[in-house]
Amino acid sequence: MTTFSPTTADALARQAIELPSWAFGNSGTRFRVFPTPGTARDPFEKIADAAQVHRHTGLAPTVALHIPWDQVDDFGVLRRHAEDNGVALGTINSNTFQDEDYKFGALTHEDESIRRKAIEHHFACIDVMHATGSRDLKIWLAEGSNYPGQSDMRARQDRLHDSLQQIYARLGDEQRLVLEYKFFEPAFYHTDVPDWGTSYVQVAALGDKAMVCLDTGHHAPGTNIEFIVMQLLRLGKLGSFDFNSRFYADDDLIVGAADPFQLFRILVEVIRGGGLNNPEVAFMLDQCHNIEAKIPGQIRSVLNVQEMTARALLLDREALAAAQTANDVLAANAVFMDAFSTDVRPTLAAWRESRGLPADPMAAYAASGYQERIQADRVGGTQAGWGA
Amino acid sequence: MTTFSPTTADALARQAIELPSWAFGNSGTRFRVFPTPGTARDPFEKIADAAQVHRHTGLAPTVALHIPWDQVDDFGVLRRHAEDNGVALGTINSNTFQDEDYKFGALTHEDESIRRKAIEHHFACIDVMHATGSRDLKIWLAEGSNYPGQSDMRARQDRLHDSLQQIYARLGDEQRLVLEYKFFEPAFYHTDVPDWGTSYVQVAALGDKAMVCLDTGHHAPGTNIEFIVMQLLRLGKLGSFDFNSRFYADDDLIVGAADPFQLFRILVEVIRGGGLNNPEVAFMLDQCHNIEAKIPGQIRSVLNVQEMTARALLLDREALAAAQTANDVLAANAVFMDAFSTDVRPTLAAWRESRGLPADPMAAYAASGYQERIQADRVGGTQAGWGA
Amino acid sequence: MTTFSPTTADALARQAIELPSWAFGNSGTRFRVFPTPGTARDPFEKIADAAQVHRHTGLAPTVALHIPWDQVDDFGVLRRHAEDNGVALGTINSNTFQDEDYKFGALTHEDESIRRKAIEHHFACIDVMHATGSRDLKIWLAEGSNYPGQSDMRARQDRLHDSLQQIYARLGDEQRLVLEYKFFEPAFYHTDVPDWGTSYVQVAALGDKAMVCLDTGHHAPGTNIEFIVMQLLRLGKLGSFDFNSRFYADDDLIVGAADPFQLFRILVEVIRGGGLNNPEVAFMLDQCHNIEAKIPGQIRSVLNVQEMTARALLLDREALAAAQTANDVLAANAVFMDAFSTDVRPTLAAWRESRGLPADPMAAYAASGYQERIQADRVGGTQAGWGA
Amino acid sequence: MTTFSPTTADALARQAIELPSWAFGNSGTRFRVFPTPGTARDPFEKIADAAQVHRHTGLAPTVALHIPWDQVDDFGVLRRHAEDNGVALGTINSNTFQDEDYKFGALTHEDESIRRKAIEHHFACIDVMHATGSRDLKIWLAEGSNYPGQSDMRARQDRLHDSLQQIYARLGDEQRLVLEYKFFEPAFYHTDVPDWGTSYVQVAALGDKAMVCLDTGHHAPGTNIEFIVMQLLRLGKLGSFDFNSRFYADDDLIVGAADPFQLFRILVEVIRGGGLNNPEVAFMLDQCHNIEAKIPGQIRSVLNVQEMTARALLLDREALAAAQTANDVLAANAVFMDAFSTDVRPTLAAWRESRGLPADPMAAYAASGYQERIQADRVGGTQAGWGA
Repeated sequence: MTTFSPTTADALARQAIELPSWAFGNSGTRFRVFPTPGTARDPFEKIADAAQVHRHTGLAPTVALHIPWDQVDDFGVLRRHAEDNGVALGTINSNTFQDEDYKFGALTHEDESIRRKAIEHHFACIDVMHATGSRDLKIWLAEGSNYPGQSDMRARQDRLHDSLQQIYARLGDEQRLVLEYKFFEPAFYHTDVPDWGTSYVQVAALGDKAMVCLDTGHHAPGTNIEFIVMQLLRLGKLGSFDFNSRFYADDDLIVGAADPFQLFRILVEVIRGGGLNNPEVAFMLDQCHNIEAKIPGQIRSVLNVQEMTARALLLDREALAAAQTANDVLAANAVFMDAFSTDVRPTLAAWRESRGLPADPMAAYAASGYQERIQADRVGGTQAGWGA
Repeated sequence: MTTFSPTTADALARQAIELPSWAFGNSGTRFRVFPTPGTARDPFEKIADAAQVHRHTGLAPTVALHIPWDQVDDFGVLRRHAEDNGVALGTINSNTFQDEDYKFGALTHEDESIRRKAIEHHFACIDVMHATGSRDLKIWLAEGSNYPGQSDMRARQDRLHDSLQQIYARLGDEQRLVLEYKFFEPAFYHTDVPDWGTSYVQVAALGDKAMVCLDTGHHAPGTNIEFIVMQLLRLGKLGSFDFNSRFYADDDLIVGAADPFQLFRILVEVIRGGGLNNPEVAFMLDQCHNIEAKIPGQIRSVLNVQEMTARALLLDREALAAAQTANDVLAANAVFMDAFSTDVRPTLAAWRESRGLPADPMAAYAASGYQERIQADRVGGTQAGWGA
Repeated sequence: MTTFSPTTADALARQAIELPSWAFGNSGTRFRVFPTPGTARDPFEKIADAAQVHRHTGLAPTVALHIPWDQVDDFGVLRRHAEDNGVALGTINSNTFQDEDYKFGALTHEDESIRRKAIEHHFACIDVMHATGSRDLKIWLAEGSNYPGQSDMRARQDRLHDSLQQIYARLGDEQRLVLEYKFFEPAFYHTDVPDWGTSYVQVAALGDKAMVCLDTGHHAPGTNIEFIVMQLLRLGKLGSFDFNSRFYADDDLIVGAADPFQLFRILVEVIRGGGLNNPEVAFMLDQCHNIEAKIPGQIRSVLNVQEMTARALLLDREALAAAQTANDVLAANAVFMDAFSTDVRPTLAAWRESRGLPADPMAAYAASGYQERIQADRVGGTQAGWGA
Repeated sequence: MTTFSPTTADALARQAIELPSWAFGNSGTRFRVFPTPGTARDPFEKIADAAQVHRHTGLAPTVALHIPWDQVDDFGVLRRHAEDNGVALGTINSNTFQDEDYKFGALTHEDESIRRKAIEHHFACIDVMHATGSRDLKIWLAEGSNYPGQSDMRARQDRLHDSLQQIYARLGDEQRLVLEYKFFEPAFYHTDVPDWGTSYVQVAALGDKAMVCLDTGHHAPGTNIEFIVMQLLRLGKLGSFDFNSRFYADDDLIVGAADPFQLFRILVEVIRGGGLNNPEVAFMLDQCHNIEAKIPGQIRSVLNVQEMTARALLLDREALAAAQTANDVLAANAVFMDAFSTDVRPTLAAWRESRGLPADPMAAYAASGYQERIQADRVGGTQAGWGA
């Protein structure tokens, strides 16, 4: 293969993956957050860094914000800063897990005043969305409990519904709420939205503007994630992906780094279900570059998604369907693996160049001098992080 | 504690757990099915054995059948045999995993003639239900695929919906369809109903008479099962339990044997959600006594459920609610553990005797001579099994 | 049961569980460390808090230190402070995961100067041990890698051996090195001592004074931990326990909170293998009280271990052996569960009182006014934590 | 890349993968064993089928036997049959899991007469080895227990040691014993050799001719298998691989089908540790073709191993070492992924042709007419299987 088919090339050209602003700040584990030279110190620097990813890949035109980590006085200024850098502001992520009031819950809290505060935090996020032009309000609930008996899971579920309903009612016509689920962490016994089923029933109870967010690292061991992708697309409720990879828990590693074949299977199912380049299905990263360089880490990540998308687009669906219909297990698997085994990198490199992008975005970034510049310039101040 | 409160005693008196006929036949692993002396050779003997469990415990008034394992010429005769033995026939379980036609699927099969055959098998099961007076048709789908690419998961899901709809339409007014989910096995890459979410969306699309069946051994490692119990009760869709226990996969061990605290937590949530002694929520066992004696294995199982129900009923919900409201984690957990740590066995023994039941059903069965009798009498013939 | 047998009472009277100083500081997840009112601000306050646990339970005569978290100018002073509070200083825990030099390894680091620094940190810990009178140097390696290819696992293993050998050579005659293993976290792809096998081969290569530390939360899902306890006792290499409990990963919850039956099974195997009250086998806690009160959290923890020890001591080993020999699966399991199901709390309460201890240590602590006092007194300063 | 380097080509030319005779018989799950048209009916036909795999791939010169599944009157005749078909007989696998006597154990059984019988079965296997010219006696222990308390794990471990010692003493000078470990199944609570550590300590206690067998499907979820490969090679105790792949449990799927990247990582570590084409480290398959065609299933399997070996041989170890030394995480991972991402299939095809082998062994087998012939010829008789 030396060139992509026009359809494939077109699909690749339209692909867009949103970057998380927090990937450009420091992150770590409960044991230690190691600093990285040149790390951004504020939302403006984070966006400048994110723009580098887009500049070298053409894949990352938007940046998601996290409130309050990216709180600024004037989001209009931040928006113009982004535009000046060639990117736009994207999804707004709320945060209900760091205020002391939220130690035992937020949108599910039994204390009405704390629950009210958490709901109003989301109202404030919606206000930010109006200022930034963002469409999606993403809610990841860190809520849950650590010990059996600690809380009434049923009542929390009902309060969650009520809280979400109030937030949903506040959305603008073009805005959406996407509800993320997560198996465990930071809560260890139960989380209030642990699985796609719970997220689905909660958003289905809200209305058409509420969707599910699937984070690829938020499942029990052994979960068939592409099945969930298929099911949510079938139900019309897959609102967005948080891409990353994991070996054990929510490791938040570079997408495609732990199990590239799983990423391929997910993308095959996305394409099968009409989710590729479908505005209803946002592609985002949610990663932590604890020990590796952050900007190249993000470049590698979007390239990994692009590469697996290209492989998935190569899948000969007619041949696959024929083998499936014949129940020829080995033939069907061979067609499937044929796409996965194809090395699309040379073709992608040529295609990038044809579009005025560097053949090797990693090398182009390294050669750009940007990293050296920020390491030299960003002296003083406090590197951005999670504020944990 | 020397006696139960009237409420607790009443709840215990009303508890009923359905036994699976197949627990009285031989079972094993893919490596070996070991025979057990005295094993029943036909449905009549299985029901006679099941009746022993009820006789000594008062807990197991019904027996579930599996078609075709329990196929007989005249189900009216089998029904009267059950009644003569003091039990009734219960849930009818279909089987779409042993006919060669079903090697690649049944209700999801791409070949319309095979799918038709599988649907009609369920029609036949419904006919059996009319003859046996059974309310529930339980469908466990063994369908899925072993290799990525082998089949089109999305199309299978749509065909499943169509098949279920046809079966649902055939149900009598008082009959129900319960759809079981299972993480894996016998299919290894994907199963068509792998999780509660899928079962829920499938049955929700059918109507009020379709419900979810939760088998406690059918989840990914680490899954918080009591959360699912809570959620399905909240959604009004928990149709039945298949109780058993597991350390790793679908081990089908005696319920409560692997993690008694988990069983307690499940029962606490059942009571919390109004699922105890609620006719909508059937309690059943689904177990394999591969190496242990079968009739005592079933007696032990229903006693384990009873014992954990008694402990769960002891939970001081007022004290728990107070501690929860105060977010006193340790106090709430202490109230919870206080119920779990209570040894209810002496009180249960006394209560059983007060109801004309043996204080120690295990000992009573051992002393009854039944086991010796069947081991002596059941000479010749073929012991019942799964016919795998 | 109203009293324990003399043997059981004696075993309980001799039981000692070491407390981790860090349990009295704040801890949390990568998302947030929530403060708790009254949290200790230095090693002296931590030890005072730990002494409360011993005062009310008689179970916790020693406190483990973590260097550098518990670094003080004069360990002799700290030692006397402990003695004044009725406790002694115990195991010294090294820390090679928070210095920036250790971002990519410490005892396994490819850079000899960094590896030297890590080795010398352990020499310093041994010096502390001489000052504190501690016997055990506990090494938990946070080292590993996050991405395939990142590092040469084999060379690291060899360097680890060399590092440990140097540290081992420095031990005093009465001192020991215990090497902890951990499945994952903070490294996500590989850890240098992931399993008991690796810890065993590393310490076996050192000599008799090197042993394995088993942390109950450091295993893959589904691991049969009591089997490992059995095996390490059989091999004479079980040096210590880090007790805690977990639902998913290394949750560090209160021991016995997640799966009390597992704790029982572990203690049965400890007793079976001669590990109870055996000076070779140290019992320690390693827990994080992220959201619950810390001192009562530790009291609850040692009580949980005591309670399960009492149940395990009740096991009728003769009856068990007879049932095992007869391969009577249900009888053997019944004997086993009979011990587990026994509510030992009233007997324990009476036995405690007979020894001059409060019947209910949790209530005694609550009534003591200590918590209110430290919440009032500990004003200003910085609460202790992990310094992450 | 259009040709392999001489070193790579040589390594590929020397690669040999042993086939399991049982892969050519029927297999399935506890739910059903589906027959496959043309399945071999006896050891002679199995070997003829296995020879087809070697004929088209040049990769599979030996066939492992399983006793008693492959019991014949005269193993000399079977040996000549194999040689006539261009292959040799390989590892002898014992079976201590299907005789009724072994229901509760074999080499670990408490009853000395049953344990004696199991030991003597291994003596008989050694006799077979002399007749077949086999080097390795492979012992997979299906032994364990299903319920806590059922058996004394410690005593079983000691008896296992004694049994193995007797078997080991019987080995000829050039013969070896390889001991396989397995996490669970068919036993559900404990298995007597659950992990590499246990297998290692058991074989280390025997002597130099005893080694560990690593089955890639026999680990807890999330286990880093290549770490174990590294460790066993480091310890000089990796005797053989049983290759297969799995999504959940011991699925026994085609190697490389579930996680090709994991297979790559394993092979990288094999090469790193000197295990490739090392006679000490036998490569074998252990798979079940439950639903797919068996002979092509085996062809696909050896090709998958070959393909990943080729990719692993492409790894630029100098560049990798440089990046590792620099702790350049992304660069090291990039070097690693560069090898994995390379499509070696065209080069392999050309290389095969240069050696007189078909470029596409799957197509060559399909075109050979062999499958049609056996389906036509093998009429009557009983298809081979596990005899479960």
